[in-house]
Amino acid sequence: ARPKVGYFYVGQEVAPLLADHLYQATVDQLMIPPLLIQQATTIDEAVTQLFMHDVGSLYVVDQQQKLLGVLSRKDLLRATINATNTSTTPVAMIMTRMPNIVTMTEHKTILQAGQRLIAHQVDSLPIVEPDGVTVIGKITKSIIMRYFIEEGLHIQN
Amino acid sequence: ARPKVGYFYVGQEVAPLLADHLYQATVDQLMIPPLLIQQATTIDEAVTQLFMHDVGSLYVVDQQQKLLGVLSRKDLLRATINATNTSTTPVAMIMTRMPNIVTMTEHKTILQAGQRLIAHQVDSLPIVEPDGVTVIGKITKSIIMRYFIEEGLHIQN
Repeated sequence: ARPKVGYFYVGQEVAPLLADHLYQATVDQLMIPPLLIQQATTIDEAVTQLFMHDVGSLYVVDQQQKLLGVLSRKDLLRATINATNTSTTPVAMIMTRMPNIVTMTEHKTILQAGQRLIAHQVDSLPIVEPDGVTVIGKITKSIIMRYFIEEGLHIQN
Repeated sequence: ARPKVGYFYVGQEVAPLLADHLYQATVDQLMIPPLLIQQATTIDEAVTQLFMHDVGSLYVVDQQQKLLGVLSRKDLLRATINATNTSTTPVAMIMTRMPNIVTMTEHKTILQAGQRLIAHQVDSLPIVEPDGVTVIGKITKSIIMRYFIEEGLHIQN
């Protein structure tokens, strides 16, 4: 018969192996392609994109895919409730702009990404090249939660 | 000297001890007080509440605190972009109603709550009494993510 194997607990502390397994996954393993729009896009068009793709945030980039801004559901809700003329106002008027955007690079760990999401109270982080501005991906609270839950199901089964 | 103790890995599988520690936390240990509103509340008032308390969703209850509906940022954004008259329209017109609301009870595990959030693609779960309708708390994707990240920091330090 196949031998039963696993971790054996021998003391009061948890050794790094557990942390390695769950928390050392890196951003590039979990990041998803971001939804990118131009800064001339109207608020109405941005909201339509948000619903069409069922995402929580949009990234605004220039022609070289360099990050100019971030738009969250909250930013869009603030604009629409304030009776901004949403059919003509460009997102450039309401987006959060660089350098006020919190970003991350792809070789950081999930633990570091989660800490940053919590510290800055944001729902997503644009993942950028080492140049700090070229967008290559996106990490969200949802992705990180789903990762831990799926790992948990895997462990239990 | 204090002996070095911990888990020793002796094979290919992960035993239940890890799962117990991280994944067996229960909903009542992590749930937060929900923001409750009445169904006559206008959309404008609901959006104000959302921003004032910086939350992602509101629960609509009757006088007995029984759940009638849920309002997400997405529901409110859909209503405001559609040029609904948000200063007079009550949230009852746009909320997701029982029995179409996914709820949970307080003795379920975080793993079960996370699975339910993923399966139903919602950002939060109202936590209800065993009667299925009396609201006593709220669990969100953010809370679950923060839990796993904080546990990870704890393990590493």
